[in-house]
Amino acid sequence: MSQEFTHFDATGQAHMVDVASKQETHRVARAGGRIVMLPATLQKIQQGDHKKGDVLGIARIAAIQASKRTGDLIPLCHPIPLTHVAVQFEVDEPSSAVLCEVTAETVGRTGVEMEALTACSVALLTIYDMCKAVDRGMQIDAVRLLEKRGGKSGDWMA
Amino acid sequence: MSQEFTHFDATGQAHMVDVASKQETHRVARAGGRIVMLPATLQKIQQGDHKKGDVLGIARIAAIQASKRTGDLIPLCHPIPLTHVAVQFEVDEPSSAVLCEVTAETVGRTGVEMEALTACSVALLTIYDMCKAVDRGMQIDAVRLLEKRGGKSGDWMA
Amino acid sequence: MSQEFTHFDATGQAHMVDVASKQETHRVARAGGRIVMLPATLQKIQQGDHKKGDVLGIARIAAIQASKRTGDLIPLCHPIPLTHVAVQFEVDEPSSAVLCEVTAETVGRTGVEMEALTACSVALLTIYDMCKAVDRGMQIDAVRLLEKRGGKSGDWMA
Amino acid sequence: MSQEFTHFDATGQAHMVDVASKQETHRVARAGGRIVMLPATLQKIQQGDHKKGDVLGIARIAAIQASKRTGDLIPLCHPIPLTHVAVQFEVDEPSSAVLCEVTAETVGRTGVEMEALTACSVALLTIYDMCKAVDRGMQIDAVRLLEKRGGKSGDWMA
Amino acid sequence: MSQEFTHFDATGQAHMVDVASKQETHRVARAGGRIVMLPATLQKIQQGDHKKGDVLGIARIAAIQASKRTGDLIPLCHPIPLTHVAVQFEVDEPSSAVLCEVTAETVGRTGVEMEALTACSVALLTIYDMCKAVDRGMQIDAVRLLEKRGGKSGDWMA
Amino acid sequence: MSQEFTHFDATGQAHMVDVASKQETHRVARAGGRIVMLPATLQKIQQGDHKKGDVLGIARIAAIQASKRTGDLIPLCHPIPLTHVAVQFEVDEPSSAVLCEVTAETVGRTGVEMEALTACSVALLTIYDMCKAVDRGMQIDAVRLLEKRGGKSGDWMA
Repeated sequence: MSQEFTHFDATGQAHMVDVASKQETHRVARAGGRIVMLPATLQKIQQGDHKKGDVLGIARIAAIQASKRTGDLIPLCHPIPLTHVAVQFEVDEPSSAVLCEVTAETVGRTGVEMEALTACSVALLTIYDMCKAVDRGMQIDAVRLLEKRGGKSGDWMA
Repeated sequence: MSQEFTHFDATGQAHMVDVASKQETHRVARAGGRIVMLPATLQKIQQGDHKKGDVLGIARIAAIQASKRTGDLIPLCHPIPLTHVAVQFEVDEPSSAVLCEVTAETVGRTGVEMEALTACSVALLTIYDMCKAVDRGMQIDAVRLLEKRGGKSGDWMA
Repeated sequence: MSQEFTHFDATGQAHMVDVASKQETHRVARAGGRIVMLPATLQKIQQGDHKKGDVLGIARIAAIQASKRTGDLIPLCHPIPLTHVAVQFEVDEPSSAVLCEVTAETVGRTGVEMEALTACSVALLTIYDMCKAVDRGMQIDAVRLLEKRGGKSGDWMA
Repeated sequence: MSQEFTHFDATGQAHMVDVASKQETHRVARAGGRIVMLPATLQKIQQGDHKKGDVLGIARIAAIQASKRTGDLIPLCHPIPLTHVAVQFEVDEPSSAVLCEVTAETVGRTGVEMEALTACSVALLTIYDMCKAVDRGMQIDAVRLLEKRGGKSGDWMA
Repeated sequence: MSQEFTHFDATGQAHMVDVASKQETHRVARAGGRIVMLPATLQKIQQGDHKKGDVLGIARIAAIQASKRTGDLIPLCHPIPLTHVAVQFEVDEPSSAVLCEVTAETVGRTGVEMEALTACSVALLTIYDMCKAVDRGMQIDAVRLLEKRGGKSGDWMA
Repeated sequence: MSQEFTHFDATGQAHMVDVASKQETHRVARAGGRIVMLPATLQKIQQGDHKKGDVLGIARIAAIQASKRTGDLIPLCHPIPLTHVAVQFEVDEPSSAVLCEVTAETVGRTGVEMEALTACSVALLTIYDMCKAVDRGMQIDAVRLLEKRGGKSGDWMA
């Protein structure tokens, strides 16, 4: 792994890194995170569906849309034409949390870690937004890269 | 505190909540979070400045810009004309983390919790992006509301 | 009703109309439209839910988000801080169509007709997108203003 | 033609469909639609030009810009680098309508139907916006795909 | 006039300045600029109209839309609900240039100088884009504030 | 060099030019510009750093982000996946100005002149924004293409 921050040039100035000479390869990133809440809030989410208020369905759409906005939000990210985005939620009753996992893929010159992480963060923020009227103390934790495949730096797993 | 998710109507359908009859008042929200990393990564960030690569300066700008995009990212958020956004970072060596705190303010009909939380998340994601070439295992934790002032539901502190 | 296109000045040049001297009043617009499809497609949508694919739930979110993007899409629209957006769908079996109705509201200096119409159009386009793999011949019809309240020009109903 | 909605996975959850394994081919889509109005409104549009108010010229620009925002508006659309967008208007006096036809093209892994349909809708919405001060009862009709070429599913004409 | 950069706090960190306590007043800004080109290019622009290619009509729309995106583009700008935007072009044959002047207005807590300047810049960039196939050496000059009215700092003229 | 404006078809209507048949080649554009200010303002900028207010660091980020928004701002620009963006500033004391130079690169079917020029303009506008409280009379000048490489039309230098 490199020992320098690649987003800065030799004089310390930020730039969008030159990737023109990199190969267009199939790249995959998987990111995860969770939002911890009161058990009563978790129960409301679990009872929700398209008749009663589908919190997770809405958070999934927000996440997919956010993955496409990553280049707009993260200053030095390259704009990337995503080829696949999938968002999974799991209710974890013991920790009173909703877990989120996002897979992002592209065929391109640079990785999609930021797309997966941004989508995961926005999914969890959307859950916060939809439940905040009943539970302001929710907390987003453990947003991290789980796996990365493709590209010259090779595969990586957390 | 309400016992129902306000973002759904009586039939369970999502809507942008009607706030026309709410008062335009001064509203403040404070949100916090952190990103945990290897001590060597933290050290590189601390050494950075406008000559050597100012990771935190760039993350601050990303956060301020993201606060203005909240309505675009979070599906049921109202568009809000922010009157103030400030972003503070603190290096916490014992936990090998960068702490972030965002204050958002408006004079409007609804609160700015989501603006503060979204800005905080994007600040931490930007730090991840800029350091990921040297440390892929960084983790974003404890993104939460710290304080809320103004509006009918009154003040709240974590 | 005016006899001139207000979006042009006396020399025929487009401008964003000056509304500074207008009153901030409560303004409401209701717009409707429908998408006509094969009966088999309509049946699939009706069977959908958050377990089997909730087409209408996703179209509703797309509509609400599009209402907030209206000023970005329609060149001479004023940016408007919406206070309420609601989207209703109804399945009309006799005409083999999904009907969409959007209500948009603001407290502002200009009306929200375009916000309601844009949201309605994007709802119907999203339904097209999600069903196009099984029915390319779907058609969007009857996108129109149903009602307008508030503002100096007074109330209007279709 | 597939018998399932491809935008949902086996458990009914929405995703952005995986297109990584599809070929990059030249893809074309043509969409049409119309806006019906009072004859007096149509006449005003016909008299317009760059000296007197060029409604159709502005709607054309709005349509081209909207084609580039399709991925932002339609939740499960892939972001697509368009290679060509053209917008034609025709005045149809017998039906007192303006007809719009949009051609969108790309060299990519997925079709551009939504780009053509979104551009066409926004063109017609822009005409509504510019003429609404004189004619609130205008109606957008017959927004539909006219033709699709390229890609594995082959060519299609309405 | 202040002697400090208001966009930084006492420790030198950038923030979006707090304007909550400022009055909502009517604010106007006027900005100007020009693009210098070959006489042959200027002549082509002058001959253009809605039949032959209306460069200035398209640049005007781009400018109006850009005024609404100012908060997205300029990091520390407040989001502002504009109440009026007008764009004037003038052909200046002696200097072989197109002159652009933009007026932006709001009723708000902060000025609209950046909105007028951004719109003016994008108008001139759009002219460059549309003419670059025949004249790559065009140059944008003299983009500056011409006048500012309203707000506590009072009126100002260049 | 072509003698016609390529952004219009034979009937004078604007379109996004068809580039599907062009080769994907490595393309580079370099643009420059400057903002002239009072010597006292220039001095403040020079004294700034990440402790005292880093005007140029913020303008650099704004420029990089703007390069990614070019297709959104300039109506007939193709959306382009940039592979490299770099922004250099130089303080020119004799002319009391900050000079800006932007390099943009892609591997694609059309050039990136507009991306470089847009980034340069937004960098200079951001400097204006951050210094306007102390110097409203600053002026942006000499925004122009410096160099272009790649593509069928060949290399070009100012």
